[in-house]
Amino acid sequence: KNQRSADYSEISQYYRPGHADYTFDAKYGFRDYRGGGRSSARETIGRVAAGAVAEKILDCLGIRLYAYAKEIGGISIDYSRFDRNACNPFNMPDAQAAAQVEAYAAARLQEGDSVGGIIECVAENLVPGIGEPVFDKLDADLAKAMLSIGAVKGFEMGDGFAAARSTGLQNNDAFVMSGGRVAKKTNHSGGTLGGISDGADLVFRVAVKPTPSISAQQQTVGRDGKERTVSIKGRHDPMVVPRAVVVVEAMAALVLADQIFENMTAKMDGIMQFYGR
Amino acid sequence: KNQRSADYSEISQYYRPGHADYTFDAKYGFRDYRGGGRSSARETIGRVAAGAVAEKILDCLGIRLYAYAKEIGGISIDYSRFDRNACNPFNMPDAQAAAQVEAYAAARLQEGDSVGGIIECVAENLVPGIGEPVFDKLDADLAKAMLSIGAVKGFEMGDGFAAARSTGLQNNDAFVMSGGRVAKKTNHSGGTLGGISDGADLVFRVAVKPTPSISAQQQTVGRDGKERTVSIKGRHDPMVVPRAVVVVEAMAALVLADQIFENMTAKMDGIMQFYGR
Amino acid sequence: KNQRSADYSEISQYYRPGHADYTFDAKYGFRDYRGGGRSSARETIGRVAAGAVAEKILDCLGIRLYAYAKEIGGISIDYSRFDRNACNPFNMPDAQAAAQVEAYAAARLQEGDSVGGIIECVAENLVPGIGEPVFDKLDADLAKAMLSIGAVKGFEMGDGFAAARSTGLQNNDAFVMSGGRVAKKTNHSGGTLGGISDGADLVFRVAVKPTPSISAQQQTVGRDGKERTVSIKGRHDPMVVPRAVVVVEAMAALVLADQIFENMTAKMDGIMQFYGR
Amino acid sequence: KNQRSADYSEISQYYRPGHADYTFDAKYGFRDYRGGGRSSARETIGRVAAGAVAEKILDCLGIRLYAYAKEIGGISIDYSRFDRNACNPFNMPDAQAAAQVEAYAAARLQEGDSVGGIIECVAENLVPGIGEPVFDKLDADLAKAMLSIGAVKGFEMGDGFAAARSTGLQNNDAFVMSGGRVAKKTNHSGGTLGGISDGADLVFRVAVKPTPSISAQQQTVGRDGKERTVSIKGRHDPMVVPRAVVVVEAMAALVLADQIFENMTAKMDGIMQFYGR
Repeated sequence: KNQRSADYSEISQYYRPGHADYTFDAKYGFRDYRGGGRSSARETIGRVAAGAVAEKILDCLGIRLYAYAKEIGGISIDYSRFDRNACNPFNMPDAQAAAQVEAYAAARLQEGDSVGGIIECVAENLVPGIGEPVFDKLDADLAKAMLSIGAVKGFEMGDGFAAARSTGLQNNDAFVMSGGRVAKKTNHSGGTLGGISDGADLVFRVAVKPTPSISAQQQTVGRDGKERTVSIKGRHDPMVVPRAVVVVEAMAALVLADQIFENMTAKMDGIMQFYGR
Repeated sequence: KNQRSADYSEISQYYRPGHADYTFDAKYGFRDYRGGGRSSARETIGRVAAGAVAEKILDCLGIRLYAYAKEIGGISIDYSRFDRNACNPFNMPDAQAAAQVEAYAAARLQEGDSVGGIIECVAENLVPGIGEPVFDKLDADLAKAMLSIGAVKGFEMGDGFAAARSTGLQNNDAFVMSGGRVAKKTNHSGGTLGGISDGADLVFRVAVKPTPSISAQQQTVGRDGKERTVSIKGRHDPMVVPRAVVVVEAMAALVLADQIFENMTAKMDGIMQFYGR
Repeated sequence: KNQRSADYSEISQYYRPGHADYTFDAKYGFRDYRGGGRSSARETIGRVAAGAVAEKILDCLGIRLYAYAKEIGGISIDYSRFDRNACNPFNMPDAQAAAQVEAYAAARLQEGDSVGGIIECVAENLVPGIGEPVFDKLDADLAKAMLSIGAVKGFEMGDGFAAARSTGLQNNDAFVMSGGRVAKKTNHSGGTLGGISDGADLVFRVAVKPTPSISAQQQTVGRDGKERTVSIKGRHDPMVVPRAVVVVEAMAALVLADQIFENMTAKMDGIMQFYGR
Repeated sequence: KNQRSADYSEISQYYRPGHADYTFDAKYGFRDYRGGGRSSARETIGRVAAGAVAEKILDCLGIRLYAYAKEIGGISIDYSRFDRNACNPFNMPDAQAAAQVEAYAAARLQEGDSVGGIIECVAENLVPGIGEPVFDKLDADLAKAMLSIGAVKGFEMGDGFAAARSTGLQNNDAFVMSGGRVAKKTNHSGGTLGGISDGADLVFRVAVKPTPSISAQQQTVGRDGKERTVSIKGRHDPMVVPRAVVVVEAMAALVLADQIFENMTAKMDGIMQFYGR
């Protein structure tokens, strides 16, 4: 009922820039323009429901998984003020940054514009050994899961693109002994080596583009093949980042649960012990 | 025969920082330290062989796919000098940048250090409509394929992480009519909208970390659980980027061929026509 | 609401012979004994819903798919009386056989017993070439689909087990020319050769065991580990065959639609034609 | 080298009845007639190699898996003479039946004809709980694996098609207590209930058609579209059953290993114990 299909009637006549309207038409010769189709963010409800089950599994295994908005509209959190319990509509763990975002986003909305941002996700206390060695690397499955979320345009593990600009000496994480176990002095790798969890925190980031539906004037093309200028009406959010945080966390939980399951067959003696044989 | 297993005998005693040595041991209780295991770049030969077949398919369909080193050790190509026919050992389409990289890499090698870089991949003349709408978005499958390659730590489509810092007005690509067809004025999206190809060039980038095997002194831990300082011997390359270009292109070809096949069932009338019914 | 969970309260105390009660407990340490779990025939509703969509696709392609009870309680249809339009509660295309089944089943029900049967499924006008050559043979996917239906214990293509007792001269279908096309004089193979459709009618059969829930006295074991004698109450059908006919047809439709889609990439020139390149 | 491609040159001109020649041509517009293609029994070498690894895993878990020819050319073994150590070229665990088969097969070969048969496969000491509840039932995966083997036309679990002719009272296996555990008095089900192993021996059978390549005169059609009579030359075996026994066992081992792995995540407490959390 919440779809308010009437809001979408005008949209049926043209292709919204930055949206899947045109590509759905190109692929299927058809599109559901009323906000309930498969390219609507409403589709993520199933991901979040399944993710909630997966997070229960991670809880049972003592793994702490959380995601937050690291940056919105170019305004980044300051890690020295990092507070997971900070409560604000932007899902930012830094009240000061959140306040700046609020002002910035209000200004953009005023202009009929929108903003993007970066979501960071962390998993603590993951056992080492999770992830498959060739195609189903933990990094690979996370990357696919993240890029399958609408509006996501980038993914990086650990230092990610910054690693591409560093050197081996800077980027390699030295191994040390800590409490009788192998550990790492730093975590440039973001918790995986060779696609397999290395016991350090899993850390990755996701780039979210600005909401494409904006009320400012834009140039586009109608289904009639004529160019036109449009201003998109309806309840459009100037940023999807805060809500995408939940989806990122859900998808990460699903990947982790799957990979934790898959890892149970890595060693023959583990299998024999499991079956008591 | 080319493996020169003897080079690796010392490595069997400790975990190389930045390598999968430790994670393989953690997962399997075993690792093949002789350079032929599943975490060796030699594993990519199967990807390249399969990719060569996939590229034949793309050729038949008139799709031009190519990858190149966009940036090595922080030195980027200049698009005003872009030359696909430039021939240099760095796979850089800009002779001047390549010359700078040569000097820079030689200096790092001298220090026993290594460098990373960014690979860019482009597919021209792809039909619109390729990519599945929810989990198997074209972006998602490409991201998984790229992050499944060893040493890759990041992926971005089109403007990628830069899009996260722009606004809707800046980032949306206006639709225009061009030669009787719907086209886009710009290509911030990198050729996909909603995970489906939009007819513009497909453009994505991949972050490659610096080679972890370096001869400079590093701190690590032995299999005996004791900390030690090591200098890795053997034929180690100060950069894998130029050779990873080939693997990126191969994996992209595989994803595109798969998705082009999958798209053939998007419309019922297309299926009926195919079967002449 | 139709589940009438109260009917099942007694069942929670013991393992019904021939049912999944014990194996679910062994696997999950838990079972849903109220008739709504994953081993209930109610689970097939999703298969039938999806199968209805798949049958629409087959209709568009001119393929006629139908299933029927070939034999119930050992009473077989007579093909000389075969009438697809015969309307009886047993889904038997032979009114006379259906009448016999009615009497036979009533007698078994009287005794608190139940009966099994054989379902036959036919697809006419399938194009040759459908089915993948190694693991995903058309026969193999059909076999999996059929054995995934509860109570199904056997599958055979064409002559099936009878072929195992015949000779090459008897079993080989001679090729002939018919209307300018290659055809077969007989159809012992049931419409596939090497796992790929050969243009003849697809014909396969499925063995359905007698309903395990019966009111006659049976020996079993309780969850308390004590042996006991039980008589199962509730609305139990003395035969599931007539209703399983619908499920067999639905699953066959799903396999055929999938394999028809997959076959579209068998030839490079077919792909090029599809994309107009 | 063993292919003797020359033997096949004549075959290139026509479609062998009962073979995949015609269907490969229909599907691919091409076939490899030299005995090395994907429809050749040579393809099974990869299955047997992988199956050998899977059988090692089953060995470690104390599962005894074995297959044998139960019936060839209609001549069945007598279970009262069952001897797993019987050594004969027919893989029959009954020397007397094997002797009869030898005479029968020689007579058929003399006539340029061939014979089929039935292979039985048994797995002892399988834990209860193996198999997934809906689509990936243990029966379903075994059925697919078996029907994916060339020349196989039927599959049945336990009593199979005979169960379709029995009644609930006859076919239900009574549960009893045995050595403090739940067991079954009989094994009509062949070791699965609801698609999940029930702790009894896994027993299934596979129908193998007679070898289609025979030297007796047969009617067929040439690639030129003309009808002709042919006599197939080359080293053709009058029965594939004895060698298919090895393939059946290998495929069963692969399915069992996969499903045993998959079952390890059935219970949350099992997962927690595995990870020591």
